[in-house]
Parts: sequence; structure tokens; C-alpha cells
Amino acid sequence: MNNQLTVGIIGAGRIGQVHTASIMNNMKNVTIKWISDVKPGLAEEWAKASGIPSYSLNYKDILQDPAVDAVLVCSSTDTHAQISIDAAAAKKHIFCEKPIDLSIDKVKAVKEAVEKAGVKFQVGFNRRFDHNFKKVSDLIKDNTIGNLQILRITSRDPEPPNPAYVAVSGGMFLDMTIHDFDMARFLSGSEAEELYVAADCLVDPEIGKAGDVDTAIITIRFKNNALCVIDNSRKAVYGYDQRVEAFGSLGKVEAGNDSPSTATWSTSSGVFSEKPKYFFLERYMESFTEEIRQFVDAISHDTDPPVGIDDGLMPLIMGLAAKKSVKEQRLVKMSEFI
Amino acid sequence: MNNQLTVGIIGAGRIGQVHTASIMNNMKNVTIKWISDVKPGLAEEWAKASGIPSYSLNYKDILQDPAVDAVLVCSSTDTHAQISIDAAAAKKHIFCEKPIDLSIDKVKAVKEAVEKAGVKFQVGFNRRFDHNFKKVSDLIKDNTIGNLQILRITSRDPEPPNPAYVAVSGGMFLDMTIHDFDMARFLSGSEAEELYVAADCLVDPEIGKAGDVDTAIITIRFKNNALCVIDNSRKAVYGYDQRVEAFGSLGKVEAGNDSPSTATWSTSSGVFSEKPKYFFLERYMESFTEEIRQFVDAISHDTDPPVGIDDGLMPLIMGLAAKKSVKEQRLVKMSEFI
Amino acid sequence: MNNQLTVGIIGAGRIGQVHTASIMNNMKNVTIKWISDVKPGLAEEWAKASGIPSYSLNYKDILQDPAVDAVLVCSSTDTHAQISIDAAAAKKHIFCEKPIDLSIDKVKAVKEAVEKAGVKFQVGFNRRFDHNFKKVSDLIKDNTIGNLQILRITSRDPEPPNPAYVAVSGGMFLDMTIHDFDMARFLSGSEAEELYVAADCLVDPEIGKAGDVDTAIITIRFKNNALCVIDNSRKAVYGYDQRVEAFGSLGKVEAGNDSPSTATWSTSSGVFSEKPKYFFLERYMESFTEEIRQFVDAISHDTDPPVGIDDGLMPLIMGLAAKKSVKEQRLVKMSEFI
Amino acid sequence: MNNQLTVGIIGAGRIGQVHTASIMNNMKNVTIKWISDVKPGLAEEWAKASGIPSYSLNYKDILQDPAVDAVLVCSSTDTHAQISIDAAAAKKHIFCEKPIDLSIDKVKAVKEAVEKAGVKFQVGFNRRFDHNFKKVSDLIKDNTIGNLQILRITSRDPEPPNPAYVAVSGGMFLDMTIHDFDMARFLSGSEAEELYVAADCLVDPEIGKAGDVDTAIITIRFKNNALCVIDNSRKAVYGYDQRVEAFGSLGKVEAGNDSPSTATWSTSSGVFSEKPKYFFLERYMESFTEEIRQFVDAISHDTDPPVGIDDGLMPLIMGLAAKKSVKEQRLVKMSEFI
Repeated sequence: MNNQLTVGIIGAGRIGQVHTASIMNNMKNVTIKWISDVKPGLAEEWAKASGIPSYSLNYKDILQDPAVDAVLVCSSTDTHAQISIDAAAAKKHIFCEKPIDLSIDKVKAVKEAVEKAGVKFQVGFNRRFDHNFKKVSDLIKDNTIGNLQILRITSRDPEPPNPAYVAVSGGMFLDMTIHDFDMARFLSGSEAEELYVAADCLVDPEIGKAGDVDTAIITIRFKNNALCVIDNSRKAVYGYDQRVEAFGSLGKVEAGNDSPSTATWSTSSGVFSEKPKYFFLERYMESFTEEIRQFVDAISHDTDPPVGIDDGLMPLIMGLAAKKSVKEQRLVKMSEFI
Repeated sequence: MNNQLTVGIIGAGRIGQVHTASIMNNMKNVTIKWISDVKPGLAEEWAKASGIPSYSLNYKDILQDPAVDAVLVCSSTDTHAQISIDAAAAKKHIFCEKPIDLSIDKVKAVKEAVEKAGVKFQVGFNRRFDHNFKKVSDLIKDNTIGNLQILRITSRDPEPPNPAYVAVSGGMFLDMTIHDFDMARFLSGSEAEELYVAADCLVDPEIGKAGDVDTAIITIRFKNNALCVIDNSRKAVYGYDQRVEAFGSLGKVEAGNDSPSTATWSTSSGVFSEKPKYFFLERYMESFTEEIRQFVDAISHDTDPPVGIDDGLMPLIMGLAAKKSVKEQRLVKMSEFI
Repeated sequence: MNNQLTVGIIGAGRIGQVHTASIMNNMKNVTIKWISDVKPGLAEEWAKASGIPSYSLNYKDILQDPAVDAVLVCSSTDTHAQISIDAAAAKKHIFCEKPIDLSIDKVKAVKEAVEKAGVKFQVGFNRRFDHNFKKVSDLIKDNTIGNLQILRITSRDPEPPNPAYVAVSGGMFLDMTIHDFDMARFLSGSEAEELYVAADCLVDPEIGKAGDVDTAIITIRFKNNALCVIDNSRKAVYGYDQRVEAFGSLGKVEAGNDSPSTATWSTSSGVFSEKPKYFFLERYMESFTEEIRQFVDAISHDTDPPVGIDDGLMPLIMGLAAKKSVKEQRLVKMSEFI
Repeated sequence: MNNQLTVGIIGAGRIGQVHTASIMNNMKNVTIKWISDVKPGLAEEWAKASGIPSYSLNYKDILQDPAVDAVLVCSSTDTHAQISIDAAAAKKHIFCEKPIDLSIDKVKAVKEAVEKAGVKFQVGFNRRFDHNFKKVSDLIKDNTIGNLQILRITSRDPEPPNPAYVAVSGGMFLDMTIHDFDMARFLSGSEAEELYVAADCLVDPEIGKAGDVDTAIITIRFKNNALCVIDNSRKAVYGYDQRVEAFGSLGKVEAGNDSPSTATWSTSSGVFSEKPKYFFLERYMESFTEEIRQFVDAISHDTDPPVGIDDGLMPLIMGLAAKKSVKEQRLVKMSEFI
């Protein structure tokens, strides 16, 4: 392969559009040849607006094009596994949005297909590429804080999802916390041994009626002995709240939120500053670009993608364990799932 | 009673000295007439240095003095209950350091004695009077953050105790976390329903050999539905780390550490600032004074002391529940103890 | 004019490249048709790399193309005035980098040409579009701080320029402080009445030998009575230091630097955080894009550009006044120049 | 002299009371034997309330008592010089509140008297002992920021004084800025060469009618080449604003305000924190205690007091130069006064 890469985008929804813009604005060595979406007209409309030459209702058209080196799977979660398996069979490298699937078996099937085909596979845990969390990770790896002992992750959304979405998404642990499970693995550099969850429906009773929770505190014991706690809420009225703190034998490191500006103002009423960025696209736009850049680099230089298929599997298991812990009100071991 | 109060200090160790200095420097309406300590010479030495007219090896000498209105019980933990019972019988108001005792039954016996005698009783959870935590409490009470949903308490000591101390202190949960249990009750305004603890010995193996842990994450469900998480370490190398965050339906409030100065400096190597105050007496000196001031006020104005005997009992039960949770690796309900 | 705009870039150096990338990545309604540069090969190389169809050694080729609506003058300072005058004669809208010229008379000649031709003219004071300073400006306009009384601007470069550059640039006041003079006018909403400068050569003696200063404190009295102070240094070893504070009858507002991340870390040695962004392109990239977007909008909607030709003239006068104040060690009035 | 020191307080107003409380609460080796005040009843009342055995309407009664080692001159400014001269003649060590006098000649007369008598003399520039400014000074002395190039002092009062006070106080520069002049000398470790002042009456027209200003920016060139800028306002509605920043060849150090708590809270309206401490006694109480402690130490150990009589003289000269600069609208050299 030369350095020029040709890709197809499968799924023209919000995240598909985000990746399209990232590539177009930042990666001269990547050409987007195709975009597909099952929704009539959507791929066509977006292809024309963006100057993408080909579009389709059927992702298989992309897979059949020998010019295509890689696909970005940005469709709905329930289609990720099949599309990935098909793409692997067609020898396309795969960038797949998270979660790969809500079923452990299906993810394992994807893994098998990918390994058999020998294609690159990256899962879309973009937050590893965020400037703040990246710095925390670097400091941990540099041994700035010594042996990790306590890891704290705060992850709160500004707005709860539509209760109707709760059912299809697999619930908070598989939809939202799965990012935090990934972050916990990324920062600890270890695998979960067991976890316990205290959770409740405190934000929106409709979410409870749909069988889910909206507030949780999750305690995880990692194999390297680090203890981790994640606190989640579906609704932080002040904006998107995404922070971590890692504490170890030699110190701690914290990363806070990003704000629209550094301005602070003081009046007779008090001292004021700006709320955190409200929307995940504002906060994480750079990280969306960076993950694709590294996926492209992994293909170009034939190296391992930074977030592999096991990085998609383990957070899924943690999410399922979390659901079980809430249901059975007890400590749940990962070994119950593997 | 007129506004002038006469007190005796029982126990001339570090905390007895702290209270003595607080009273002498700040409360013109309080006279310290007595100080006692079982260690030969200590009370005498300190009485002479401080201008306290009377001293004794035996606290009963203080209780027998009709001029004494109140006593401050600052002796070793195992003597708190008996001294408090004796003081109540002598009709002295009682300020008792925490914990009242490590036995629920003994604390109940103190409660009975105090109620029978009709004297004031305050337990020494000084952190409620800290300027930072007080402000958090005020904002919660003002409904600034709406209904409390998540409460986070970070409490880390700068240095682990001598392992020999671990046995007599009752262990980390009864010695150190008990303050955080009090803080959780204070800020939530509710009682714990159940708790789960993940803990380990990551700081000093000698503490483990003594049968205790030094690192813990404690999840508590409160009766008002608030979820609380406490993270503890016996050793934060950067100093005494005491922070809280309360999150609710209308927002959040956080309180950080105090530093020796506000100075920050920037060089080609980075941006620097001062570590948190290292020692609990530096951090909490104001709160030690304020708790005594309010104890004195409660006597002078015949009102309820701000931290009563049940405020001493409930954190003890939470501490015992925490020990049980670690031992049995399961969720423990407070109702198992009451 | 339809909404689609065709532009030419005059000057393919660093700032020309910055504007080219901004337009290509962010403005679908703008087509860059031409790029020119007097340096042989440079425009050609860059045109080919960026997909710009036409290139030239001579900016007049651009001006003669009737398809071109507007030009961005990104060439060396000494050519700005003549190119602007020629562009106006060719009825092209003009975005001109700062300073327009180092001579008041030449800037006035540009003004005359622009007014006669009836084209839009915007000068490249990009910092007005920075997220931090924009917020400060908004708060001042909202009357959050009441009547402005004291305005403080800190502006320090990370590295001094090559002393050889000092002569051609017009010196620190016309090269670097000119941005701060613009900021002072922007935030105060008023014109300078008089100024006094205390300055010295403390960073690099070679700068002194070249007849310039590298450290200065400039006090300005504005016509609306606000007092302003600017402090400048050519070398802040910790990075690019760009802050403002506005103080008024109802409060103050401050804006600090941007950092690469929000991470802070604490060890036994202290508390650490990241230095400000080091390079002006890192700090101001967004503002470079935003100023071009607003220039384009002004053309599309036939409104006044946000930073007009007088906004280029007044800071020049202030810079010349500053030089005079240093030379004569006295208060200098703007009226001496107008 | 043994380690026990006997002192008299001359002046029972606010600052006299502050020093009395500092000594009583913190210095066991100091006995306050006398307090005097010209206002009938005031010294008596305060002596009785505080347990000071002797009181008088006439400070000479204190000077005649051979048991008295030192006096604290806390009376009105116009009496400082004569009382100091009398105290020196009586061989009493002297702590004198600032300013020593508003006349250079009178301060020189005090200096002569003190030197002739061989007594210790300290002037009450308490801010040198503030925890924040002390840290800045320490970092400068440690060469953390290299050679000092720019020194910025912000000093703003929460409330303007009564206009009637303006006349007797000598005006803003001698009453308020004099502390900042002291700070500039303290932090720079150098003497002023010349200064320029831009000032106005923007807060209260009555102050202007009384012949004074209430807002100023003062630029000072020090003999070690450091440039310094002080900005003053008589009215910062958000509280007492006292900050410094020192910038040098190796970096910068900043010190901010103290706040009542570290609490910050976030709602849908924004992020909030507490205003700076409002009142100078809240902010500087520790420094008032520390300056007296060091005065006492200087006597006990026969060393030089940390803030000598020249430290009282030089800020006075700077204040007079500032008044001249405002009046004559020009750069004023210190050599015009010496």
C-alpha cells in the first residue's frame, strides 16, 4: 500500500459525519470514496454536500469496491458485529464505533473473523486520545505517581437520553459507563477482577420504568491491586462533567473539565467562571480526529491499532457485570463471564 | 448559670493541649480550672506552663469540684465511656473526643447516663466546623444543588500510623474513616442504609499483618437515596488531602484543600504551587476552636450541642459495618447492627 | 454577489499558509483561486500541495482576475500599503495583515484609496476573536463590571526575535505591542489621550544595540477616563503569556492563558501543572480562523468588517507615541501625531 | 535583659487593640503593663477588659516606668514622630505604626533620636509578614525567577475612606499606596530611581474635591533596573484585592487573594466561588501577629528589627514623589527629594 488510503463511511448519522469532517479537514492522505446509510436519501445528501463521489443504501457496495482499504463502522450498534464480520471477509481494515456489540459471543465472533482475515481493527474509545486524559496516562506511565492505588473517574452527562433509547442501548452501563470502563483499563493498565455497583434512578423516573438506572457508583478491584471508583449521572445541569484522578504511592494527578474560556469575573455577588463545555462533541472533537489519525497510521505503517478488539470486549464484560451487580446487589467477579 | 463557665480538661496529651490553647486564646468567658492526666507529672507541668490553677492524676478530683461546670474528655479512647458516665453522674456537661467508644453497648450506656443526668454532651467531630466543609453544608442546605444524589469524600492522611497503634485504635474505619462517616451524615442530612467496602493493604504491609487495611473505597446508600463514596488512604505523600464534592439535581459544590499560600510560580519546567497543609492541626485548628465555642454557647444558652451523642453512635456503627463488609466481601446493612 | 466567494492569497509565508488552511478546512463558501509570492517557487509549491489552481510571482496577476472577489495581504509589512492601494483600485475587498504600514501617511493613503473604491477593508488584529478576550469584551459590554476604570494587559513573548528583525519590524512597540494597543482600544471602547512608557533592554543586549527595548510598562489614559497599563517582555521562559484584567465600578474580569491540558499533579515536591501554550499559532489558531470568517461574512452580507482601517491606524499612532515617550522620557499626547 | 519583655501600648484604637490581642494570645514572653490613649476613658475601659494593670491618658506615664522595655506607637499619625523621639530618649525600644510621619524632616529627626539612643525601631509594614507575599519574597531570594524584570502590584481597597479623612491622611499615596511602595522595595530588594503616576478620581467625586485621587497606575524604575507597576483603587466592590506578580529572567511568581473557603459550586448558571476576604484585618491578622513576634525577637536576641527606620523613610519619599508626579504630570526622580 502506498501512503494514500481510501476509506468508506458506513453510517451517515452524527458520528459518521464527525469522522468525515475530521478526515476531510485534517488528513490529506485519506480519501473518502464512499458513504452509505440505510436511511433513504441520507447518504446521498451528505455525499453531495461533502464531495464524496459514491454513496449507497447498502454497505456491501462499499465492501465490494477493491479500491477501498478500510471502513469506518458508524451505523447503529446492533449492526456493528455483522458489518465488521463482512468487512473482515472482504479484507477491509475496520474502525468500529463502540460498543462492538452487546453480546460477548458476537464480539468474540468479530474477533475471530478479524484475526482470520488479518485485517486491522480499532474500536472507537476516543477518550483515550483526549488531551487531558492523555496527559494523565503519560504521567502514570512516567511513574510520576508511583504504584497506582486509587483511581477516580467522574463521568456525568448534561442531559439524560430519551427513555426509549435506554432499551436499545443496553442501558447506562453499556452505553455511557462503557467509556469509563475503558478509561479505567487505559489508566490502570490492568484488567478488572471484580466490581460492585450501587445505583439508582434519581434523575428521571421514566428511565427507571424502562428498567435502567441513571445514577451509579461503581467500585472495581483491578488485578494489579488498584482500586477504582466511577461515579455516573445522566444529568449534570452545569454541563458535561468528565474528570479523573489517579492516586499512587508517589502522588496524584487530576484532570478537570475544559471550559469555553479562562475568563473569571468578580462582582459584589461573588466570583464567577464558565461552565464546562456542555456537549460531548465540543469536548472531544480533537480526540475524534486523533483516534482516526492513529488508525490511519496503524494501517500505513502496519502496526497494531492503539485500541484493539479486546479493548472492545473487556468493557462490555464489565458493563454486563455491572448490570448483574445492580440486579443481585452483590460483588460480581469478571470470571463469572469468561 | 452566669455567662462565665469553668471547665476541667481530662487528658493533657496533644488534643487536650489543643483545646486548652483554643480556650485560653479565644474564650474570655471560659476559665480552665483543672487539668488531669494519668501520666505522672504531665498535668502538673502543663498546668504550670499555662497558668491553670489545679492539676491531678485523677479525673475524679475534677468531677468532685462543684465549681466545675463542664469537662473536656481528651484521654485515651478506652477511657472515654467511663469518664463520661462518671461526669454525667457528677452533673458536669461533657465534651468528649471521638470515638466515644469502640463498643456500641458502651456508647449506649453513655447515652443513657447523659440523658438521665440531663447534662449537655458533645462529641468531637470538629470537621463539621471547618470553613470549607461548613460552606459546602450551607450551600446544600440553601438548596443550591437541589436534591443530593452523589456525595464524594476524599480523606487521605499524610503518614500511616504506627502499626502498633492500629490494634488499639480499632483500625482505619474506626480511627480515621469515622470522621468521614460523620461528614457523610452531616452533609447528606440522612442516615446510612447500607454500605459496601473494597479495601486493601497497599501502603504498609505491617498494617496488614496487624489485621487492618490502609486503602479503601466505601460506597454508602443513604435513606434519602443519596449515594456516597469515600476514598481513603493512610498515606498521601503530598500532604493531608481532605476534599468533598456534593452533586445534586441543580448542580454540584466542591471544597478543596487549604494551602500555606496562594503563590504559584512558572518556570521553563512548568507551573508550581504549594502542597496542601500537611498536618491535621494546621488544617483544622480553626475548627477545633469553633467546636468548643459552640459547646460553650450551648451550655450558656441552654440549647442542644451541635454534635450530639447519636452523632457519635452512628459513625461507630458505620465503622463496624465497614469492617464486616471487608471481612465478608458483601453489602452490609446498618440494620444488622441496630 | 452570490454566497460563494473567490479569494487570492498574496504572500505564501507562515501567516499566508495559516489563512489558507483556515479557509480550506472551515469555509465551504470560500474558494482560494490564487496564491502569489515574490520568492521563486514558493507559491507554486504551495499551490500544488494545497490544490489551489493558480499561482504567480506577481500579485498583480491576482488583481487582474475578474473572478477574484477579495485578497488577503499576507506579504512583508513594507508592501502592505501599496498592495492594498492596488487592490482597492482593482475593486477587490482587502484583508490586510497588521501593521498596515509603519508610516501614518501611508496608512492614510490606504484609507483614502479604500474609501474611494468602496471596498471592504479589514486589518488582521486576530486577538479580538480569541475565545478568552472575546469573553472579557462581552462581559464589559454587558456592563458586568460597570464603568471601566483600570485595564491591565500582560503580553510577553516566549522568545525574543532575531535582533536583525528589530530594525525592519519598527521595534517592539510597532511589532508586538501594537496588538496590545489594539486590545486596549477593543476592550476600553475608547481612544487613547496620552501615554507614558518606562522601558529597558533587560533580555538581550543585542536588541539594545539595534536601538530597541525588550521590556516595557506602558501607561495609557483613555478619553473615557479609563487608565490602562500594558506590561511587555520579549522573553517569558515559561511560554506565551497573554492575559488581561479589566476593573470597573461593579467588579473585575480576568482572562488567563490556555494550557495544553487541565492536568495537575501533586507529589512530595509540590503541586504541578502545565505551562501556557508556548507558540502564538497554538494559542491563536481559532482566532485566525474566526477573523477570516467574519471578513467573509462582512462581504457576503455587505456589512462593515469588524476591524476597520482606523483600527489599523490608531495602534500605529500609539506605537509611535510609545517610541517617542521612551526617547524623550515624558508623557506623550496622541494629539502630537494627528 | 531576660527573655521576658514588658511593653506599653500607646493608642487604644483599632490597631492598638489588634496588637494587644496578638500579644496576649500568642506571646507568653511578653507582658503588656500599660495602655494609654488621649481619649478619656478609652484606655481605662480597654485595660480593664483585657487585664492590663495600668492605663493613662498620657503616654509619658508609660515612658517613665523603668519596668517598660518597649512601646508600640499606635496613636494618630501626627503624633508618631514626637512619641518616638520621646520614647527613644527614655531608652524604650519602639514599634511605630506606619507612616512614621508625613514630613521627611520629622522622620529624619526620629532616625537621629533612635540612633543616638541606641534603641530598636521597627515600622509597621505588616504585609511583609503575610504568608502569600512572604512566599513570593522567598522565591525571589531563592533565584527561582532569576533577575527581576517586571514587578506588578495590585492593591485595591473594598471601600473608599471618608473624604474628611483624606486631608489628614496625606492622601492615597501616603495612606494606602505607601504599603505598596514598601512591598515594591521589599520584593525588588532595591531602591526606586524615578516614578511616573497616571491617576484620577473615578470612584468618589468628594475625594476629588478634597484634593485627592482614588485610582492610580504608578510606574517605578528601580536602581537594579527592575520595572514596577502598582495599580490602586479605593473601591473594589468584590473585596480587598491584594496581589503581586514578579517576573524575571527565569520565570514568574504570582500570589493571589485569600478567600473564606475553597468551595466552588456549579449550577446551570455558571461556576461560582467566594470573594476575597473583604476586610484588611481578616486578610492580614497573621501578619500583624508575626511582625510583633519578630520585633520582640529582635529585642530578645539583640538583632536588627526586620523593618527599620529607613524602611519607613523611603516609602514616604516615594509617596511624596507620586503626589508631585500627579501634580506636574511628569516623571519624578527620587533624587529631587534627597
